Amino acid sequence: MSVLQIAVLRQKIHGLSADDYAAALNAELPETDIVVGTTPAEERDLVESASIVTGYDLDKSLIETAENLDLFAGVYAGVDHLPLETFEKNGVAVTNASGVHGPNIAEYVIGAILSHVRGFGRARRQQDNHVWQSYPASELQGSTVTVVGLGAIGSAVVDRLDPFGVETLGVRYTPTKGGPTDEVFGFDELHAALARTDYLVLACPLTETTAGLIDSDALLTLPTESVLVNIARGGVIDTDDLVGALQANRIAGAALDVTDPEPLPADHPLWDFENVSITPHNAGHTPRYYKRTAEILAGNVERYRNDETDFENRVV
Amino acid sequence: MSVLQIAVLRQKIHGLSADDYAAALNAELPETDIVVGTTPAEERDLVESASIVTGYDLDKSLIETAENLDLFAGVYAGVDHLPLETFEKNGVAVTNASGVHGPNIAEYVIGAILSHVRGFGRARRQQDNHVWQSYPASELQGSTVTVVGLGAIGSAVVDRLDPFGVETLGVRYTPTKGGPTDEVFGFDELHAALARTDYLVLACPLTETTAGLIDSDALLTLPTESVLVNIARGGVIDTDDLVGALQANRIAGAALDVTDPEPLPADHPLWDFENVSITPHNAGHTPRYYKRTAEILAGNVERYRNDETDFENRVV
Repeated sequence: MSVLQIAVLRQKIHGLSADDYAAALNAELPETDIVVGTTPAEERDLVESASIVTGYDLDKSLIETAENLDLFAGVYAGVDHLPLETFEKNGVAVTNASGVHGPNIAEYVIGAILSHVRGFGRARRQQDNHVWQSYPASELQGSTVTVVGLGAIGSAVVDRLDPFGVETLGVRYTPTKGGPTDEVFGFDELHAALARTDYLVLACPLTETTAGLIDSDALLTLPTESVLVNIARGGVIDTDDLVGALQANRIAGAALDVTDPEPLPADHPLWDFENVSITPHNAGHTPRYYKRTAEILAGNVERYRNDETDFENRVV
Repeated sequence: MSVLQIAVLRQKIHGLSADDYAAALNAELPETDIVVGTTPAEERDLVESASIVTGYDLDKSLIETAENLDLFAGVYAGVDHLPLETFEKNGVAVTNASGVHGPNIAEYVIGAILSHVRGFGRARRQQDNHVWQSYPASELQGSTVTVVGLGAIGSAVVDRLDPFGVETLGVRYTPTKGGPTDEVFGFDELHAALARTDYLVLACPLTETTAGLIDSDALLTLPTESVLVNIARGGVIDTDDLVGALQANRIAGAALDVTDPEPLPADHPLWDFENVSITPHNAGHTPRYYKRTAEILAGNVERYRNDETDFENRVV
């Protein structure tokens, strides 16, 4: 068996470096030659000889001259930014990192919901002022959580809700596929789900269907007590409509990891609502990002060595 | 069947009133005569005739003159404040409200852990300053959570941790009883559990064994990355030792619903640590407090009517 060369392109994800990724790959794949390209020139040289390249993206011109390249392992869950046709034309398989965000984003979502349930925002303000004053809290148990998008992330959220004694509703493109929630709705039945919702979790991709999905009409259907959690993309919510609903006290709060516009400008009204919490698009952050990405690639390297082509997370 | 009289004494719990409790009892027990004593004089009259009394406490003198009284249903989980011997001497059974806090306190604990995991304290400070800046977060999955005290609350915490992919350790008086955690330790083995702990949840009663349990010695055994969550009683932690450990960065943080002294004085150093969150002893707050208390009492009323005496939560 010849030593397989894997080229790691320049990248920084969640405060981790390409060297961290290479170390994770080495741990999973001791019998391979894992080399990090630290400059554009080094990257070019590596891509020309490597069988497998892993990184954010790869230039079309490099794909065309990469003689040994059989697999490009993208380190993002999304692949819209990749030249998929060029990969396909040149016989290069492409995989993504779908699934690596499940545990951490699900932890973010449950944490955001429970922070609202327990009034941790109020506690923090009282603490800032050194005020000890009891206040009533609500309770998650017995409420209804609706998850829009039942992919890896949405499912990880639903899994973690299981012992909390909640009813779960799911909204997805093809409700006939079923899902992990107690009930599954199509996007054409969205309002029927919203009307029963206490906590609305947006975990869908941004598409023509989901752009501006949560607008003033949806916010009107949502109960006054409901709370919105967005870990999808900012554009799934109509921001002006959300600001209006918050100003008029039409929903009980929102936890936003993504916004539109993003980054949120310093003078934006969303910053200052007491019942809104904002995080800087870091729900996907996990110290185990590269560990999980490396696990996916290691499984695919084994398939590759066995001349199998049914790679995990294969998109091309 | 004669109409059973249930006297509801004056009480306010978690922002709820005795009338709220009476309404919850009426919903569970339509065929009873539920009367609220709104003044000390009314209470005295009611206790003299009622078969069942429910409230915080009952004066010894009233117990001795309560001719029909068969059951006192305490609305707190604790009964240390009650004249248990007088109840026993007068043939009055006593029950407590143990178990009503399980769901809400468990939600508080999971929320407090995940708030630390996801750095929500930092997010809140950035939001206050309208700053959008990504920062790394940690992850609960794969860590070890130790729960001291495996009663109704500790068990409710462990139940909710199940889908998060953590290892759980329990510490209890009689480890031979086993428990819901992956491993169970006695208090004499506390340090062996602490040494492996990422999140330490205190859910034990305050006793001779647990007073000052978390002192500088325990804080030295705990890993530097560990986080302390106290929903037990303030006195389970030696506050000065905790302040010292936080000042020296010996643990990663604390979420405290209870403190010693309590309320925490305005000039106390605990208020201002960035990695400490403080709530005003309201982890037990739930809008469903009286609903659950009423459910316990309703079950016991049915037993009472059937001349059974194996009341739920019976302590005398």
